[in-house]
Amino acid sequence: MSVTAVVPFRPVNPKSRLSHVLSKDERECFAEAMLSDIVTALRGAGCSPFILSTVPLHCSYAEVQVSDQELNPALNALLGTMKGPLLIIMADLPLVDPDVIRRILSTTADVALGPGRGGGTNAIFVKDCSRFHVDYYGASFLKHKKIAEGSGLSCEIIDSFRLHTDVDEEEDLVELLIHGTGRAAGFLRSCGLELLIEKGRVNVRRLPQRSGSGCGDR
Amino acid sequence: MSVTAVVPFRPVNPKSRLSHVLSKDERECFAEAMLSDIVTALRGAGCSPFILSTVPLHCSYAEVQVSDQELNPALNALLGTMKGPLLIIMADLPLVDPDVIRRILSTTADVALGPGRGGGTNAIFVKDCSRFHVDYYGASFLKHKKIAEGSGLSCEIIDSFRLHTDVDEEEDLVELLIHGTGRAAGFLRSCGLELLIEKGRVNVRRLPQRSGSGCGDR
Repeated sequence: MSVTAVVPFRPVNPKSRLSHVLSKDERECFAEAMLSDIVTALRGAGCSPFILSTVPLHCSYAEVQVSDQELNPALNALLGTMKGPLLIIMADLPLVDPDVIRRILSTTADVALGPGRGGGTNAIFVKDCSRFHVDYYGASFLKHKKIAEGSGLSCEIIDSFRLHTDVDEEEDLVELLIHGTGRAAGFLRSCGLELLIEKGRVNVRRLPQRSGSGCGDR
Repeated sequence: MSVTAVVPFRPVNPKSRLSHVLSKDERECFAEAMLSDIVTALRGAGCSPFILSTVPLHCSYAEVQVSDQELNPALNALLGTMKGPLLIIMADLPLVDPDVIRRILSTTADVALGPGRGGGTNAIFVKDCSRFHVDYYGASFLKHKKIAEGSGLSCEIIDSFRLHTDVDEEEDLVELLIHGTGRAAGFLRSCGLELLIEKGRVNVRRLPQRSGSGCGDR
Protein backbone atom coordinates (compact mmCIF):
# COMPACT_ATOMS: atom_id res chain seq x y z
CA MET A 1 0.00 0.00 0.00
CA SER A 2 1.31 3.40 -0.92
CA VAL A 3 1.95 5.64 2.08
CA THR A 4 0.61 9.17 1.93
CA ALA A 5 3.29 11.82 2.40
CA VAL A 6 2.58 15.47 3.08
CA VAL A 7 5.12 18.16 2.30
CA PRO A 8 4.33 21.53 3.91
CA PHE A 9 5.44 24.40 1.67
CA ARG A 10 5.48 28.18 2.05
CA PRO A 11 6.30 29.66 -1.35
CA VAL A 12 6.40 33.35 -0.37
CA ASN A 13 9.84 34.89 0.32
CA PRO A 14 11.38 31.52 1.21
CA LYS A 15 14.86 30.92 2.63
CA SER A 16 15.45 34.50 3.66
CA ARG A 17 18.70 33.53 5.41
CA LEU A 18 20.16 32.98 1.94
CA SER A 19 19.34 36.56 0.83
CA HIS A 20 23.01 37.55 0.64
CA VAL A 21 23.70 34.72 -1.85
CA LEU A 22 20.48 34.45 -3.86
CA SER A 23 17.96 37.09 -4.97
CA LYS A 24 14.30 36.78 -4.00
CA ASP A 25 13.38 35.33 -7.41
CA GLU A 26 16.27 32.88 -7.20
CA ARG A 27 15.27 31.82 -3.69
CA GLU A 28 11.76 31.14 -4.94
CA CYS A 29 13.11 29.02 -7.80
CA PHE A 30 15.49 27.28 -5.42
CA ALA A 31 12.73 26.48 -2.92
CA GLU A 32 10.62 25.08 -5.73
CA ALA A 33 13.53 22.97 -6.99
CA MET A 34 14.01 21.56 -3.48
CA LEU A 35 10.28 20.79 -3.32
CA SER A 36 10.53 18.99 -6.63
CA ASP A 37 13.53 16.98 -5.36
CA ILE A 38 11.72 15.76 -2.26
CA VAL A 39 8.62 14.84 -4.26
CA THR A 40 10.87 12.85 -6.63
CA ALA A 41 12.49 11.02 -3.71
CA LEU A 42 9.07 10.25 -2.18
CA ARG A 43 7.76 8.85 -5.46
CA GLY A 44 10.98 6.85 -5.88
CA ALA A 45 10.20 5.14 -2.60
CA GLY A 46 6.61 4.44 -3.61
CA CYS A 47 4.89 7.17 -1.55
CA SER A 48 1.89 9.21 -2.66
CA PRO A 49 3.01 12.75 -1.96
CA PHE A 50 0.92 15.89 -1.76
CA ILE A 51 1.90 19.46 -1.03
CA LEU A 52 0.30 21.44 1.76
CA SER A 53 0.82 25.01 0.64
CA THR A 54 0.09 28.27 2.41
CA VAL A 55 -1.06 29.82 -0.88
CA PRO A 56 -2.54 28.46 -4.13
CA LEU A 57 0.21 26.92 -6.23
CA HIS A 58 0.33 25.58 -9.75
CA CYS A 59 2.24 22.32 -9.63
CA SER A 60 2.39 19.78 -12.43
CA TYR A 61 3.97 16.96 -10.46
CA ALA A 62 1.95 16.69 -7.24
CA GLU A 63 -1.48 17.40 -5.83
CA VAL A 64 -1.68 20.63 -3.82
CA GLN A 65 -3.89 21.33 -0.82
CA VAL A 66 -4.06 24.90 0.42
CA SER A 67 -4.32 25.84 4.07
CA ASP A 68 -3.98 29.34 5.42
CA GLN A 69 -3.44 27.97 8.92
CA GLU A 70 -0.05 27.96 10.61
CA LEU A 71 2.05 24.81 10.31
CA ASN A 72 1.03 23.15 13.59
CA PRO A 73 -2.76 23.62 13.37
CA ALA A 74 -2.72 22.78 9.64
CA LEU A 75 -0.91 19.49 10.22
CA ASN A 76 -2.86 18.62 13.35
CA ALA A 77 -6.12 19.18 11.46
CA LEU A 78 -4.82 16.76 8.84
CA LEU A 79 -3.79 14.18 11.45
CA GLY A 80 -7.27 14.48 12.94
CA THR A 81 -9.01 13.55 9.70
CA MET A 82 -6.66 10.95 8.24
CA LYS A 83 -6.73 7.22 8.79
CA GLY A 84 -3.70 4.95 8.68
CA PRO A 85 -0.07 5.95 8.33
CA LEU A 86 1.24 9.35 7.30
CA LEU A 87 4.68 10.69 6.54
CA ILE A 88 5.24 14.39 7.17
CA ILE A 89 8.44 15.62 5.56
CA MET A 90 9.88 19.09 5.09
CA ALA A 91 10.32 20.72 1.69
CA ASP A 92 13.95 21.85 2.15
CA LEU A 93 15.70 18.48 2.16
CA PRO A 94 17.24 18.23 -1.30
CA LEU A 95 19.71 15.49 -0.28
CA VAL A 96 17.00 13.02 0.70
CA ASP A 97 16.95 9.97 -1.56
CA PRO A 98 14.51 7.06 -1.88
CA ASP A 99 16.76 4.88 0.31
CA VAL A 100 16.26 6.99 3.40
CA ILE A 101 12.53 7.28 2.72
CA ARG A 102 12.41 3.48 2.60
CA ARG A 103 14.33 3.30 5.88
CA ILE A 104 11.71 5.57 7.47
CA LEU A 105 8.76 3.58 6.13
CA SER A 106 10.23 0.24 7.18
CA THR A 107 10.49 1.19 10.85
CA THR A 108 9.18 -1.40 13.27
CA ALA A 109 8.31 1.38 15.75
CA ASP A 110 5.00 3.24 16.01
CA VAL A 111 6.67 6.52 15.10
CA ALA A 112 9.88 7.36 13.23
CA LEU A 113 11.49 10.75 13.68
CA GLY A 114 14.08 12.28 11.40
CA PRO A 115 15.92 14.94 13.39
CA GLY A 116 17.04 18.11 11.65
CA ARG A 117 20.19 20.00 12.42
CA GLY A 118 19.72 22.41 15.32
CA GLY A 119 16.93 20.57 17.09
CA GLY A 120 14.27 20.57 14.38
CA THR A 121 12.26 17.66 13.02
CA ASN A 122 12.62 16.99 9.32
CA ALA A 123 10.44 13.91 9.07
CA ILE A 124 7.72 12.31 11.14
CA PHE A 125 6.23 8.98 10.18
CA VAL A 126 3.23 7.87 12.23
CA LYS A 127 1.50 4.57 11.71
CA ASP A 128 -1.72 5.73 13.39
CA CYS A 129 -2.54 9.41 12.84
CA SER A 130 -5.09 9.50 15.64
CA ARG A 131 -2.42 8.90 18.31
CA PHE A 132 0.01 11.72 17.52
CA HIS A 133 0.10 15.48 17.17
CA VAL A 134 2.87 17.78 16.01
CA ASP A 135 4.54 20.70 17.74
CA TYR A 136 7.08 22.32 15.40
CA TYR A 137 9.48 25.21 16.08
CA GLY A 138 12.25 25.41 18.66
CA ALA A 139 13.70 22.08 19.72
CA SER A 140 10.79 20.29 18.09
CA PHE A 141 12.69 17.01 17.86
CA LEU A 142 12.74 16.76 21.66
CA LYS A 143 9.06 17.76 21.80
CA HIS A 144 8.07 15.14 19.24
CA LYS A 145 10.05 12.47 21.08
CA LYS A 146 8.20 13.40 24.26
CA ILE A 147 4.81 13.41 22.52
CA ALA A 148 5.46 9.87 21.26
CA GLU A 149 6.61 8.69 24.67
CA GLY A 150 3.66 10.40 26.38
CA SER A 151 1.26 8.50 24.11
CA GLY A 152 3.00 5.20 24.82
CA LEU A 153 4.27 5.01 21.24
CA SER A 154 7.61 3.40 20.43
CA CYS A 155 9.88 5.72 18.50
CA GLU A 156 12.81 5.16 16.14
CA ILE A 157 15.30 7.92 15.38
CA ILE A 158 16.35 7.78 11.73
CA ASP A 159 20.11 8.20 11.47
CA SER A 160 20.62 9.94 8.12
CA PHE A 161 22.63 13.03 7.22
CA ARG A 162 20.56 13.39 4.07
CA LEU A 163 17.47 13.78 6.21
CA HIS A 164 19.29 15.84 8.86
CA THR A 165 20.51 18.46 6.38
CA ASP A 166 17.79 21.05 5.92
CA VAL A 167 18.98 23.93 3.79
CA ASP A 168 18.70 27.28 5.56
CA GLU A 169 22.15 28.82 5.73
CA GLU A 170 25.05 29.37 3.36
CA GLU A 171 27.01 26.54 4.98
CA ASP A 172 24.19 24.15 4.10
CA LEU A 173 24.79 24.97 0.43
CA VAL A 174 28.24 23.39 0.84
CA GLU A 175 26.51 20.11 1.66
CA LEU A 176 24.23 20.45 -1.34
CA LEU A 177 27.09 21.21 -3.74
CA ILE A 178 29.06 18.23 -2.41
CA HIS A 179 26.30 15.63 -2.17
CA GLY A 180 23.44 16.91 -4.31
CA THR A 181 22.48 15.38 -7.64
CA GLY A 182 18.94 16.73 -8.15
CA ARG A 183 17.29 19.89 -9.42
CA ALA A 184 18.16 22.07 -6.41
CA ALA A 185 21.87 21.33 -6.71
CA GLY A 186 21.64 21.90 -10.46
CA PHE A 187 19.94 25.24 -9.90
CA LEU A 188 22.72 26.39 -7.54
CA ARG A 189 25.34 25.41 -10.09
CA SER A 190 23.41 27.26 -12.83
CA CYS A 191 23.61 30.37 -10.61
CA GLY A 192 27.41 30.07 -10.65
CA LEU A 193 27.68 28.83 -7.07
CA GLU A 194 30.65 26.58 -6.48
CA LEU A 195 32.83 25.26 -3.69
CA LEU A 196 35.67 27.45 -2.48
CA ILE A 197 38.42 25.68 -0.55
CA GLU A 198 40.64 28.04 1.45
CA LYS A 199 42.98 27.16 4.31
CA GLY A 200 41.46 23.72 4.60
CA ARG A 201 37.91 25.04 5.04
CA VAL A 202 35.19 24.57 2.46
CA ASN A 203 32.82 27.44 1.64
CA VAL A 204 30.74 28.52 -1.33
CA ARG A 205 31.39 31.39 -3.68
CA ARG A 206 29.38 32.80 -6.52
CA LEU A 207 30.97 33.38 -9.88
CA PRO A 208 30.15 36.90 -11.12
CA GLN A 209 27.50 37.75 -13.73
CA ARG A 210 25.51 34.58 -13.57
CA SER A 211 21.84 34.40 -12.87
CA GLY A 212 20.11 31.11 -12.26
CA SER A 213 18.40 29.44 -15.17
CA GLY A 214 14.62 29.82 -15.04
CA CYS A 215 12.41 27.91 -12.67
CA GLY A 216 11.14 24.59 -13.87
CA ASP A 217 7.48 24.09 -14.59
CA ARG A 218 5.53 23.65 -11.40
CA MET B 1 36.92 -11.65 12.57
CA SER B 2 37.36 -8.43 14.48
CA VAL B 3 38.10 -5.45 12.25
CA THR B 4 40.96 -3.19 13.27
CA ALA B 5 39.93 0.43 13.74
CA VAL B 6 42.38 3.30 14.04
CA VAL B 7 41.40 6.55 15.72
CA PRO B 8 43.84 9.41 15.04
CA PHE B 9 44.11 11.71 18.05
CA ARG B 10 45.92 14.99 18.73
CA PRO B 11 45.68 15.68 22.46
CA VAL B 12 47.44 19.06 22.56
CA ASN B 13 45.24 22.19 22.55
CA PRO B 14 42.33 20.40 20.89
CA LYS B 15 39.11 21.95 19.62
CA SER B 16 40.40 25.51 19.64
CA ARG B 17 37.23 26.76 17.94
CA LEU B 18 35.43 26.05 21.22
CA SER B 19 37.79 28.32 23.20
CA HIS B 20 35.05 30.86 23.93
CA VAL B 21 32.91 28.17 25.59
CA LEU B 22 35.44 25.83 27.21
CA SER B 23 38.83 26.49 28.81
CA LYS B 24 41.95 24.73 27.53
CA ASP B 25 41.78 22.15 30.34
CA GLU B 26 38.11 21.57 29.67
CA ARG B 27 38.71 21.18 25.95
CA GLU B 28 41.38 18.57 26.70
CA CYS B 29 38.96 16.67 28.96
CA PHE B 30 36.21 17.03 26.38
CA ALA B 31 38.41 15.72 23.57
CA GLU B 32 39.38 12.75 25.72
CA ALA B 33 35.71 12.07 26.54
CA MET B 34 34.88 12.11 22.81
CA LEU B 35 37.77 9.70 22.20
CA SER B 36 36.44 7.40 24.89
CA ASP B 37 32.93 7.54 23.33
CA ILE B 38 34.16 6.51 19.89
CA VAL B 39 36.27 3.69 21.34
CA THR B 40 33.18 2.47 23.22
CA ALA B 41 31.09 2.54 20.02
CA LEU B 42 33.80 0.66 18.11
CA ARG B 43 34.04 -2.03 20.79
CA GLY B 44 30.24 -2.24 20.86
CA ALA B 45 30.32 -3.15 17.18
CA GLY B 46 33.04 -5.74 17.71
CA CYS B 47 36.01 -3.75 16.37
CA SER B 48 39.53 -3.81 17.77
CA PRO B 49 40.32 -0.12 18.15
CA PHE B 50 43.67 1.52 18.69
CA ILE B 51 44.60 5.16 19.02
CA LEU B 52 47.18 6.80 16.78
CA SER B 53 48.36 9.71 18.89
CA THR B 54 50.69 12.56 18.04
CA VAL B 55 52.21 12.39 21.55
CA PRO B 56 52.58 9.64 24.18
CA LEU B 57 49.28 9.13 25.96
CA HIS B 58 48.28 7.09 28.97
CA CYS B 59 45.03 5.34 28.09
CA SER B 60 43.48 2.52 30.09
CA TYR B 61 40.89 1.50 27.52
CA ALA B 62 42.75 1.19 24.22
CA GLU B 63 46.20 0.51 22.82
CA VAL B 64 48.09 3.64 21.78
CA GLN B 65 50.57 3.98 18.95
CA VAL B 66 52.52 7.21 18.73
CA SER B 67 53.48 8.86 15.47
CA ASP B 68 54.98 12.31 15.14
CA GLN B 69 54.10 12.39 11.45
CA GLU B 70 51.26 14.47 10.08
CA LEU B 71 47.88 12.79 9.65
CA ASN B 72 48.20 11.82 5.97
CA PRO B 73 51.72 10.31 6.05
CA ALA B 74 51.02 8.62 9.38
CA LEU B 75 47.89 6.91 8.06
CA ASN B 76 49.40 6.10 4.67
CA ALA B 77 52.37 4.48 6.42
CA LEU B 78 49.88 2.36 8.35
CA LEU B 79 47.92 1.44 5.21
CA GLY B 80 51.22 0.43 3.62
CA THR B 81 52.06 -2.08 6.34
CA MET B 82 48.63 -3.51 7.19
CA LYS B 83 46.94 -6.50 5.63
CA GLY B 84 43.19 -6.94 5.31
CA PRO B 85 40.47 -4.45 6.20
CA LEU B 86 40.91 -1.28 8.21
CA LEU B 87 38.49 1.30 9.56
CA ILE B 88 39.83 4.82 10.02
CA ILE B 89 37.52 6.94 12.13
CA MET B 90 37.91 10.38 13.63
CA ALA B 91 38.07 11.04 17.38
CA ASP B 92 35.49 13.85 17.51
CA LEU B 93 32.32 11.90 16.69
CA PRO B 94 30.61 11.50 20.06
CA LEU B 95 27.21 10.68 18.50
CA VAL B 96 28.45 7.59 16.69
CA ASP B 97 26.85 4.41 18.00
CA PRO B 98 27.55 0.73 17.34
CA ASP B 99 24.68 0.60 14.80
CA VAL B 100 26.36 2.96 12.38
CA ILE B 101 29.72 1.22 12.83
CA ARG B 102 27.98 -2.05 11.90
CA ARG B 103 26.45 -0.37 8.84
CA ILE B 104 29.95 0.70 7.75
CA LEU B 105 31.45 -2.75 8.29
CA SER B 106 28.63 -4.53 6.47
CA THR B 107 29.14 -2.61 3.24
CA THR B 108 29.21 -4.72 0.10
CA ALA B 109 31.49 -2.15 -1.58
CA ASP B 110 35.30 -2.14 -1.54
CA VAL B 111 35.35 1.15 0.34
CA ALA B 112 32.82 2.87 2.61
CA LEU B 113 33.10 6.60 3.21
CA GLY B 114 31.41 8.50 6.01
CA PRO B 115 31.24 12.14 4.97
CA GLY B 116 31.67 14.84 7.60
CA ARG B 117 29.88 18.15 7.62
CA GLY B 118 31.68 20.71 5.46
CA GLY B 119 33.36 18.33 3.05
CA GLY B 120 35.48 16.30 5.45
CA THR B 121 35.73 12.53 5.81
CA ASN B 122 34.81 11.14 9.19
CA ALA B 123 35.20 7.44 8.44
CA ILE B 124 36.95 5.36 5.81
CA PHE B 125 36.59 1.62 5.72
CA VAL B 126 38.81 -0.19 3.24
CA LYS B 127 38.69 -3.91 2.70
CA ASP B 128 42.17 -4.04 1.16
CA CYS B 129 44.63 -1.55 2.64
CA SER B 130 47.10 -1.93 -0.21
CA ARG B 131 44.69 -0.40 -2.73
CA PHE B 132 43.87 2.90 -1.03
CA HIS B 133 45.58 5.97 0.35
CA VAL B 134 44.20 8.90 2.31
CA ASP B 135 44.29 12.62 1.57
CA TYR B 136 42.68 14.54 4.44
CA TYR B 137 42.03 18.30 4.75
CA GLY B 138 39.90 20.52 2.54
CA ALA B 139 37.09 18.74 0.71
CA SER B 140 38.65 15.40 1.57
CA PHE B 141 35.38 13.52 1.03
CA LEU B 142 35.51 14.39 -2.68
CA LYS B 143 39.21 13.48 -2.81
CA HIS B 144 38.61 10.12 -1.15
CA LYS B 145 35.74 9.36 -3.49
CA LYS B 146 38.03 10.12 -6.43
CA ILE B 147 40.86 8.01 -5.00
CA ALA B 148 38.51 5.03 -4.72
CA GLU B 149 37.18 5.54 -8.24
CA GLY B 150 40.69 6.00 -9.61
CA SER B 151 41.70 2.64 -8.14
CA GLY B 152 38.63 0.94 -9.59
CA LEU B 153 37.17 0.41 -6.12
CA SER B 154 33.43 0.47 -5.56
CA CYS B 155 32.42 2.97 -2.91
CA GLU B 156 29.42 3.27 -0.58
CA ILE B 157 28.52 6.57 1.08
CA ILE B 158 27.29 5.96 4.62
CA ASP B 159 24.18 8.05 5.25
CA SER B 160 24.33 8.82 8.99
CA PHE B 161 24.02 12.12 10.84
CA ARG B 162 25.76 10.53 13.81
CA LEU B 163 28.81 9.97 11.64
CA HIS B 164 28.40 13.28 9.80
CA THR B 165 28.43 15.38 12.99
CA ASP B 166 32.02 16.08 13.95
CA VAL B 167 32.23 18.47 16.86
CA ASP B 168 34.21 21.59 16.07
CA GLU B 169 31.96 24.60 16.57
CA GLU B 170 29.54 25.80 19.21
CA GLU B 171 26.58 24.84 17.03
CA ASP B 172 27.82 21.25 17.02
CA LEU B 173 27.42 21.22 20.81
CA VAL B 174 23.67 21.70 20.23
CA GLU B 175 23.65 18.34 18.41
CA LEU B 176 25.59 16.70 21.21
CA LEU B 177 23.29 18.06 23.93
CA ILE B 178 20.23 16.91 21.98
CA HIS B 179 21.39 13.47 20.82
CA GLY B 180 24.35 12.56 23.02
CA THR B 181 24.21 9.92 25.72
CA GLY B 182 27.89 9.19 26.30
CA ARG B 183 30.77 10.65 28.28
CA ALA B 184 31.29 13.72 26.07
CA ALA B 185 27.67 14.83 26.41
CA GLY B 186 27.86 14.16 30.15
CA PHE B 187 31.01 16.26 30.41
CA LEU B 188 29.33 19.21 28.67
CA ARG B 189 26.38 18.96 31.04
CA SER B 190 28.75 18.81 34.03
CA CYS B 191 30.25 22.09 32.78
CA GLY B 192 26.78 23.66 33.00
CA LEU B 193 26.22 23.76 29.26
CA GLU B 194 22.58 23.48 28.29
CA LEU B 195 20.25 24.20 25.40
CA LEU B 196 18.92 27.74 25.06
CA ILE B 197 15.81 28.15 22.93
CA GLU B 198 15.16 31.73 21.82
CA LYS B 199 12.90 32.91 19.02
CA GLY B 200 12.57 29.39 17.67
CA ARG B 201 16.36 28.90 17.37
CA VAL B 202 18.31 26.49 19.51
CA ASN B 203 21.69 27.49 20.91
CA VAL B 204 23.81 26.56 23.90
CA ARG B 205 24.45 28.60 27.00
CA ARG B 206 26.69 28.02 29.95
CA LEU B 207 25.34 28.35 33.45
CA PRO B 208 27.66 30.52 35.56
CA GLN B 209 30.20 29.21 38.08
CA ARG B 210 30.40 25.67 36.90
CA SER B 211 33.56 23.94 35.91
CA GLY B 212 33.53 20.55 34.29
CA SER B 213 33.97 17.52 36.50
CA GLY B 214 37.45 16.05 36.20
CA CYS B 215 38.68 14.04 33.29
CA GLY B 216 38.08 10.35 33.42
CA ASP B 217 40.98 7.97 33.74
CA ARG B 218 42.69 7.54 30.42
